Amino acid sequence: MNPSQVFKQICEPTLVLDETIVHRNIQRMIQKAKSAGVRFRPHFKTHQSAQIGEWFRQAGVSQITVSSVEMAQYFAAHGWLDITIAFPVNLRQMSVLNTLANQIHLGLLVESVESVQALAAGLQSPVDLWIKIDAGNHRTGLPWDQPDAVLSVIHAIQAEPHLHLCGLLTHSGNTYGGGGTDRIRSTFRSGVERLNALRQQLTQYGFNGLQISVGDTPGCTLGSDFSLADEIRPGNFVFFDAMQAAHGVCSWEDIAVTVACPVVALHPERNTAILYGGAIHLNKDYFEQNGERCYGWIGLPTVQGWSAPLESASLISLSQEHGVARLLPEHLAQLKVGDLVCIYPAHSCLAVSALGGYTTLKGEQISTFVRSF
Amino acid sequence: MNPSQVFKQICEPTLVLDETIVHRNIQRMIQKAKSAGVRFRPHFKTHQSAQIGEWFRQAGVSQITVSSVEMAQYFAAHGWLDITIAFPVNLRQMSVLNTLANQIHLGLLVESVESVQALAAGLQSPVDLWIKIDAGNHRTGLPWDQPDAVLSVIHAIQAEPHLHLCGLLTHSGNTYGGGGTDRIRSTFRSGVERLNALRQQLTQYGFNGLQISVGDTPGCTLGSDFSLADEIRPGNFVFFDAMQAAHGVCSWEDIAVTVACPVVALHPERNTAILYGGAIHLNKDYFEQNGERCYGWIGLPTVQGWSAPLESASLISLSQEHGVARLLPEHLAQLKVGDLVCIYPAHSCLAVSALGGYTTLKGEQISTFVRSF
Repeated sequence: MNPSQVFKQICEPTLVLDETIVHRNIQRMIQKAKSAGVRFRPHFKTHQSAQIGEWFRQAGVSQITVSSVEMAQYFAAHGWLDITIAFPVNLRQMSVLNTLANQIHLGLLVESVESVQALAAGLQSPVDLWIKIDAGNHRTGLPWDQPDAVLSVIHAIQAEPHLHLCGLLTHSGNTYGGGGTDRIRSTFRSGVERLNALRQQLTQYGFNGLQISVGDTPGCTLGSDFSLADEIRPGNFVFFDAMQAAHGVCSWEDIAVTVACPVVALHPERNTAILYGGAIHLNKDYFEQNGERCYGWIGLPTVQGWSAPLESASLISLSQEHGVARLLPEHLAQLKVGDLVCIYPAHSCLAVSALGGYTTLKGEQISTFVRSF
Repeated sequence: MNPSQVFKQICEPTLVLDETIVHRNIQRMIQKAKSAGVRFRPHFKTHQSAQIGEWFRQAGVSQITVSSVEMAQYFAAHGWLDITIAFPVNLRQMSVLNTLANQIHLGLLVESVESVQALAAGLQSPVDLWIKIDAGNHRTGLPWDQPDAVLSVIHAIQAEPHLHLCGLLTHSGNTYGGGGTDRIRSTFRSGVERLNALRQQLTQYGFNGLQISVGDTPGCTLGSDFSLADEIRPGNFVFFDAMQAAHGVCSWEDIAVTVACPVVALHPERNTAILYGGAIHLNKDYFEQNGERCYGWIGLPTVQGWSAPLESASLISLSQEHGVARLLPEHLAQLKVGDLVCIYPAHSCLAVSALGGYTTLKGEQISTFVRSF
């Protein structure tokens, strides 16, 4: 099938994937990690798909990151043998964690003595532990500048023979706030430096060999110096999205997925097209653009895939099933009810979770963890 | 099973349903419609479940509203024979609409001559058509004060023998903006009055017998005069949510669903508990509370179900899998990692779509359109 045939068959909101862009994005990050000499453990929470995972495997990747125990089970079942669950360990899932730890090389995140002790009591098989450090994002983790708290966790881990301490891990999620590429670079740099400062202090207490794992797409994409890190874990880079492009992390040509949405009504009197495609298809994440909320950019289907984002066009509102796209009059005039538009989603990871699967520009169906075809 | 046993088994974000509250909410709206003498065509986009649909059927409901063609297919397959799809008709789904129109009594929404003509050409079986009117919400519909545009659509419908014109339909979604109960009441009243004014004008052109269908939970819950309407289509009332309670539409005791989420980290230094429960479980809808975004209220599991919302507690941030709950120090001190909290979601319809199924306080699993157990 060619893209025109693919679009012709689409009747409802559909996540369309450009395989060429995905491969290019994967290769670029692999080369970057290779040149920097850091381990590449990509986060699979963005694509959530065994098949897209295979594209990483074919490119030489064997170690991955996921965001939930369920996602770890899914990828373990698809032959991934070295998985870090980059989420504070959920003690209520001890039984399945134990099964996983028996099957694969499993990495978990801890940030308290209590969690370490619960894992020690609940797990029979060995696991790798990373101490989650807050390097400025202030969501989770032990503060980077309070080594005493980190030392307590280290001591608790070292008391347990089947818990193996790997090192210090952070997610500088504050790079997602945008504020310009310089600010993203400096946030990323400061995160790595803070982890390194903590590592230096811990060395003084006799703890050597602690690794540093960092991971966020804005920082790993724009950053150039990974010399203090041992491992990077970006995820979103595989597809990128309008938010990343708006923040200068990528260009629109790097965005590998759009959501094809039928036009169901036209309101030229307020320059809007109403789309079948709402909060349940895209999720209500947004970024600020010209002082307004933007839930996505608008492209049009082409014979190759999709057009560049239409100038001044924005998905300005989402309700359960409806999207409101505001367009320039000359673009609106080209649309009729029953046409498709291609939404560059504000946040691709959430659109993937919401839609649960892909259609490629060749017409192939790709399943995810959420849904199999 | 009792609620304590149900909560004990919950390991990941789970939509918990209090059946008693659901039945009470259903009965209250049925009685209200009955006293007002209007037809009750509840919107099933909130619960999305065949089993919960049965509770409506047992209470005497036989006509329903849905928000997508897929949802219409699902409920038709579960024996519902009179369904209105309250969404501007999606011309790309003509084939399945035709199948549905052949199986059940199907109502569709139109707002342009082009859509009417496309339906006339594409459908073999008769359908009911409602003209979508914009009574002030400014999302979709023909403006209530421009009868000429409405007349064109009416003429187009009347030219086609298998298209049956039912009347004028609006969704006063602007009642969801809150602004106090008086404002919700007046928005609702003005919506009904505007539809009636349009109906009066159309009578002058010889069109008699046009019905008026209105439907939004805030208006139908707080409004008291339905005398100008023929049909009401509220949906959210079956569960309500924190947003409706915050806007004074219901009390917290009327909220029939919460999302049980494991606590995975505690940060007393900033009064937060980190939950396994994020944007992919709740969707990122929120309401404003004390000048801040609130993605939900926080309760605790009890032997009966869940507690009242904790004073001054709020779900202040959501990322893909994480929720950040801010609590008073005395409440935070009662929690430990591995406990559950019960989130009163900001928007229950979106949480249902995201989680795809329910566990009742008796431990029963209830499927939805999104997922069958």
